[in-house]
Amino acid sequence: MKFSDLIHRLSPQYHSFDSHPHLNPELTNIAPIDQADVNSLSYIEGDKFANMIAITKASALILPLDSALQTQATEKGIAWLASPYPRLTFAQAIDIFYKPYKPSAQIHSTAVIADDVQLGENVSIGAHVVIEKGCKIGDDVCIFPNVVVYPDVTIGDRTLLHANCTIEERTHIGKDCVIHSGAVIGGEGFGFVPTQEGWYKMQQSGYVILEDGVEIGCNSTIDRPAVGVTKIGKNTKLDNLVHIGHNGDIGENCAFAAQVGLAGGVKIGNRVILAGQVGVANQVQIEDNAIASAQTGIHHNVKAGETVSGSPAVSNKLYLKVSAIYKKLPEIYKNVKELQKKFNQLDS
Amino acid sequence: MKFSDLIHRLSPQYHSFDSHPHLNPELTNIAPIDQADVNSLSYIEGDKFANMIAITKASALILPLDSALQTQATEKGIAWLASPYPRLTFAQAIDIFYKPYKPSAQIHSTAVIADDVQLGENVSIGAHVVIEKGCKIGDDVCIFPNVVVYPDVTIGDRTLLHANCTIEERTHIGKDCVIHSGAVIGGEGFGFVPTQEGWYKMQQSGYVILEDGVEIGCNSTIDRPAVGVTKIGKNTKLDNLVHIGHNGDIGENCAFAAQVGLAGGVKIGNRVILAGQVGVANQVQIEDNAIASAQTGIHHNVKAGETVSGSPAVSNKLYLKVSAIYKKLPEIYKNVKELQKKFNQLDS
Amino acid sequence: MKFSDLIHRLSPQYHSFDSHPHLNPELTNIAPIDQADVNSLSYIEGDKFANMIAITKASALILPLDSALQTQATEKGIAWLASPYPRLTFAQAIDIFYKPYKPSAQIHSTAVIADDVQLGENVSIGAHVVIEKGCKIGDDVCIFPNVVVYPDVTIGDRTLLHANCTIEERTHIGKDCVIHSGAVIGGEGFGFVPTQEGWYKMQQSGYVILEDGVEIGCNSTIDRPAVGVTKIGKNTKLDNLVHIGHNGDIGENCAFAAQVGLAGGVKIGNRVILAGQVGVANQVQIEDNAIASAQTGIHHNVKAGETVSGSPAVSNKLYLKVSAIYKKLPEIYKNVKELQKKFNQLDS
Repeated sequence: MKFSDLIHRLSPQYHSFDSHPHLNPELTNIAPIDQADVNSLSYIEGDKFANMIAITKASALILPLDSALQTQATEKGIAWLASPYPRLTFAQAIDIFYKPYKPSAQIHSTAVIADDVQLGENVSIGAHVVIEKGCKIGDDVCIFPNVVVYPDVTIGDRTLLHANCTIEERTHIGKDCVIHSGAVIGGEGFGFVPTQEGWYKMQQSGYVILEDGVEIGCNSTIDRPAVGVTKIGKNTKLDNLVHIGHNGDIGENCAFAAQVGLAGGVKIGNRVILAGQVGVANQVQIEDNAIASAQTGIHHNVKAGETVSGSPAVSNKLYLKVSAIYKKLPEIYKNVKELQKKFNQLDS
Repeated sequence: MKFSDLIHRLSPQYHSFDSHPHLNPELTNIAPIDQADVNSLSYIEGDKFANMIAITKASALILPLDSALQTQATEKGIAWLASPYPRLTFAQAIDIFYKPYKPSAQIHSTAVIADDVQLGENVSIGAHVVIEKGCKIGDDVCIFPNVVVYPDVTIGDRTLLHANCTIEERTHIGKDCVIHSGAVIGGEGFGFVPTQEGWYKMQQSGYVILEDGVEIGCNSTIDRPAVGVTKIGKNTKLDNLVHIGHNGDIGENCAFAAQVGLAGGVKIGNRVILAGQVGVANQVQIEDNAIASAQTGIHHNVKAGETVSGSPAVSNKLYLKVSAIYKKLPEIYKNVKELQKKFNQLDS
Repeated sequence: MKFSDLIHRLSPQYHSFDSHPHLNPELTNIAPIDQADVNSLSYIEGDKFANMIAITKASALILPLDSALQTQATEKGIAWLASPYPRLTFAQAIDIFYKPYKPSAQIHSTAVIADDVQLGENVSIGAHVVIEKGCKIGDDVCIFPNVVVYPDVTIGDRTLLHANCTIEERTHIGKDCVIHSGAVIGGEGFGFVPTQEGWYKMQQSGYVILEDGVEIGCNSTIDRPAVGVTKIGKNTKLDNLVHIGHNGDIGENCAFAAQVGLAGGVKIGNRVILAGQVGVANQVQIEDNAIASAQTGIHHNVKAGETVSGSPAVSNKLYLKVSAIYKKLPEIYKNVKELQKKFNQLDS
């Protein structure tokens, strides 16, 4: 594809492109700036990569609105376009060069599908998939091989279930969701009541709802509750190995990074970001737009818009101060001892 | 079901019910108090939910032994029963309303079962299950679709293996166990000996024993050791994404929450509770009835009955004190600096 | 096997064995020292196990170069050999007594393999395996049941894929690798660009490279990137439930313990050790031979050979000092308050 064609295809979305007028290289692939070759399109975002403009072999770059970088690219003979959102424009450029693998709309002969399952149009069901009775599968759904779907599950249009994942009974999955390989949706919540004779198992009669546009990472687990629902709101995205406990009520447009764990009954608002390995205790509430740094341990409610860090969690502002001083604890301890000594000498 | 029938069915276990004599609503389902509708049975446990009695639509409630709540329910026209263990009574009530999905006792034609496998009575084996040679499967065992069982595995009566889990060679699983979807039992311990030429792989010739009544959460992993056994004692319950390293020796009636990780050779007593994301280092011993809070990092032995918190772990009592003061570090630092300054002025 | 035969078989590798000349018991198995029986070979490594020499029933022991232990064994009538590397020698002895289960080189009739897949010699493909178009499978590869391989994957000679794992599109797996059960290699990186309208999904057009001799633990996940590669270098070993984010660039001969998580774009040198539950933030670089203790949270680059601990990570040396004093925070706080009081009295 010619660079000019790329711009043409991207431009309906972003009219405000600035670009170098004279260069029009052929582009055959898209690559990170340090691995780009001739005929690659790449991009620069942030200071870390800015100095790579001098050494990249890319033929074209997506740049931020930074005239110094643009001049540098022009002088190196690199075609460029400048976007106010270079990362977004790069994502849109990837869509032009690449489509992920999707099996054709066929039902494999080895799939085992109960008689009463309702299948939509253009459904793809891979080899060795099992779909139990009472399930409803929407149009254009794609189920990769070796997936197991327990009874009475509903799956909305265009949703993808990747290989080896398991959807347990009564789960509702919305439209345009992606469940990645090995994930388990709707497994039994961890409910055991302590008694004199040991644990009494609380049966988990509830179910999981994933609203439209939800994405669940590889080997993540979303538990169903004893009663009621565990719900993940529209367009919320979960990375790999995330655990959502029973009765979790997660809002819309959240993003949880890998290995985040939520205990039971956690309530989370919209657009909340939890970084990697964050843990949230039972029944905690986190309001809209809150953010937690990696490994934060959240035991108390978090207000809207707050950023928290540390275990136990405190405001990020306090955390940064405390962390800086934390390293000086040996010095503080020594100074206090000295002060006490001096004082005692003074006193005597 | 009439409320009076419910009480009748629950009462053989709990004779001491107190309940409102005049109301006898029809109950069709069981629900959390904030989602309950007319004809729902629900329950109240703890202060957080007590104020919901004013707004719930539930027709009947399980209450604690709290006369104020009971009066409130009566005044609102809600039938109630009061239990000294409302959570347990609620669990028993769920058993009356709900049974989890269990496939019928059939062996699916697509299952691949080695010739010498011993199958008990009333066994259910789902589609695409693979059972290798030398395995012994007890009575009433239920194996969901796409499970793989390596050679020489023993599975006790009434045990359930959920979909897509893997049981590796020589594992012994007791009676009445539940292995949830995606779990891997008996995989190779992480054993690599450093040498001049790199890692030397130590083969893992041991095996895993799960005693009766053990439950392993979705996508959890229990490793077998180089020699000897990894053992999980009777009625111990593990949540999702838990890792138990080689040679772990876990006692009875423990409960480990999601994402707990145990390194190799950890020895844990009976009735130990580890909250979410707790980590335990190599060879550590934790005695009976100990508790660790979420995200605790345990590097040293823990005595019977102790509660530990923090990373590195200290007693919970100390942890609470330290955590409170931790936030004051900037203030402490400033005060020490000031004291030093004043002292120097004094000195000069 | 006679003890003398064992020595004979081990000796080509280690000429410097010292051993007791008069005893030559029959050995039938290999066991941990506390579970050893008559006819067991066992070993002692480290102080913790040294006192077990008095009570073990083992007929033969592998000992370190410690004459006191050797004398003690001789006096108890236990045959022994002494090695400068007892753990390595023990690993080599396990190889003599035990081989892990490996299915025979057959292609199961229920496997679904695309027409154009290139299969090497002596390949074993288990029941219900799915291999999509464009894949190349090397010689002596063993794929256990219910594995799914997406299109255009390359798998090197002698590599093992354990049950229920998933290898997504375009992944390159080298020779002599082991992918344990439930692992997902090459799943989509977590790439979502925030926009006014919500998350914009960045397609993941890159792929994963596992070089020769890499081992990936059960239920671990290695993500492919938007562009470029995620690479794990030769002979690097990952334990269970580890997450490697998109564009990770991991060196050779590293070892990451269970539940380690790496965010995107992390660059790690050779022979780096990350203990359990370590987290590494976006774009961080860790140089050769660095070590991180369990639960360390790494937000900044780590120099070659450094050992880091804590969250946020500091040098292990500082961490040990700080952790010791951390427990004294209540005391420090009290002392500072007292000093202030005294000072104020002095002042007035």
